[in-house]
Amino acid sequence: MLVIGSGAKHLEGEIKEKAPITNVEIKKFPDGEKYVRILEKGDKAIVVQSTYKPQDEFLIEALLLGDALRENGYRKLKIVIPYMAYSRQDRVTKEGEPISIRAVLKMLGLYYDELYVMDIHNPKTLEFFPGRAENILPSKEIAEYFSDKLGEGIILAPDKGALERAKAIAEILGLEYSHFEKKRISPTEVQMTPVNIDVKGKNVLIVDDIISTGGTMIKATEILRKLGAEKVFVAATHGVFAEGAIERLSKAVDELAVTNTIPTPVSKISIVPEILNLL
Amino acid sequence: MLVIGSGAKHLEGEIKEKAPITNVEIKKFPDGEKYVRILEKGDKAIVVQSTYKPQDEFLIEALLLGDALRENGYRKLKIVIPYMAYSRQDRVTKEGEPISIRAVLKMLGLYYDELYVMDIHNPKTLEFFPGRAENILPSKEIAEYFSDKLGEGIILAPDKGALERAKAIAEILGLEYSHFEKKRISPTEVQMTPVNIDVKGKNVLIVDDIISTGGTMIKATEILRKLGAEKVFVAATHGVFAEGAIERLSKAVDELAVTNTIPTPVSKISIVPEILNLL
Repeated sequence: MLVIGSGAKHLEGEIKEKAPITNVEIKKFPDGEKYVRILEKGDKAIVVQSTYKPQDEFLIEALLLGDALRENGYRKLKIVIPYMAYSRQDRVTKEGEPISIRAVLKMLGLYYDELYVMDIHNPKTLEFFPGRAENILPSKEIAEYFSDKLGEGIILAPDKGALERAKAIAEILGLEYSHFEKKRISPTEVQMTPVNIDVKGKNVLIVDDIISTGGTMIKATEILRKLGAEKVFVAATHGVFAEGAIERLSKAVDELAVTNTIPTPVSKISIVPEILNLL
Repeated sequence: MLVIGSGAKHLEGEIKEKAPITNVEIKKFPDGEKYVRILEKGDKAIVVQSTYKPQDEFLIEALLLGDALRENGYRKLKIVIPYMAYSRQDRVTKEGEPISIRAVLKMLGLYYDELYVMDIHNPKTLEFFPGRAENILPSKEIAEYFSDKLGEGIILAPDKGALERAKAIAEILGLEYSHFEKKRISPTEVQMTPVNIDVKGKNVLIVDDIISTGGTMIKATEILRKLGAEKVFVAATHGVFAEGAIERLSKAVDELAVTNTIPTPVSKISIVPEILNLL
């Protein structure tokens, strides 16, 4: 049984073509409270709920769906969260802060036995979920989307921490990969350089987990242009775009594409195959 | 240590006059995520957070505050929730529904040892909270507010289920009390009658836990007028007013007053003394 939450409504059409969806009623009362109701009986369910803005509503809705499924006799509950809210609040950087992702994962653990997330910011935080938890990278989907456009191109990570993501895509396509290195060259200036790789005359795909302001991507693109790169493509799993970021970034690069973990005008790569893999 | 959440911001000024408040930073990131930070160290804390609309944000914020306090070494955590969201979703009326209040109380139980709510719709639901939980009626505050206005008046509950609330207020003021009884007199018409009490020439206060549309209160007021009541006052703990309800109700009665568990233009009765009692 596949239950689609409000935060995954944009994926419903594509999922429906391949798998039956459980009938549910989800609405909001005039006082702002969510109401959910599961209209079919069953034993196992997979809830699909992405938690972009308004993330707190989508999180509480996931909790209520969990309660409704348990109340209705479902024994085994999995939840798929394409975009996991609060995943960047993953450590205490200033005294007095919470580890917000911990609180949210503990909450989901009240009802769900298993958790599947797409490309979470810090996979180590999945340890906070009390049950089995798995991180899924949409490498195959991103690779396929850019395969023809890239030709004999290069995959680059914007920093060393994001290298695994670039590597996974490069290996699928049989291409070279590397990452940028940041060097402080003056108190106000940071230089970004692609490490040990020649981008001259090559198409390049820069790939990260999240794009928000797009500032780093624009800077990286400028450097690649100076180094004589051919086309520059930018991709990410999650398009958490700040105001105006899509426009600024689209102007700077040859193509911008993110997956549909969050619905945006440039969510051109579908992660639905990864959800269907779990069935 | 007293921590004020965003949903209790309207109570802060009055609380501050009597008790020191812990410095906290609460803000929202551009992507919609809440950020909280506790700026003082301590061992025990009482979080005050009301959960009216946007209730899901206030609930998640309470969760994050709980995590921040635990992370910061606080051992004993209490939470005071003047208005408890989802408290009317307290039973399965149609197959497939959750018991939403159960889900929310279990969530709060992840971090809080004790829970104090004001006049929850169904006090039995407090059993879903894993720790100690208490329901507080603002009878004293409502009684004091109407004491002079009522004179030798009568306290009425809109139905038998709400009688305890009317009784508590009547006993404080040494006044008579009763309740309305509903009788279906035709397929479309329900008659409401005050039981075993003569309202003629008397001031009357009708008191309930929640007012939303105000329909029942307007109907009850019309009947009291017909029966020759003098002034008719309407009070409730929680003013969850539907669009236009304050205006309609204010026109129909001599005075409408609710407590400040939810900030509204007619939240004239403060429950802050009940919060200070817990210190």
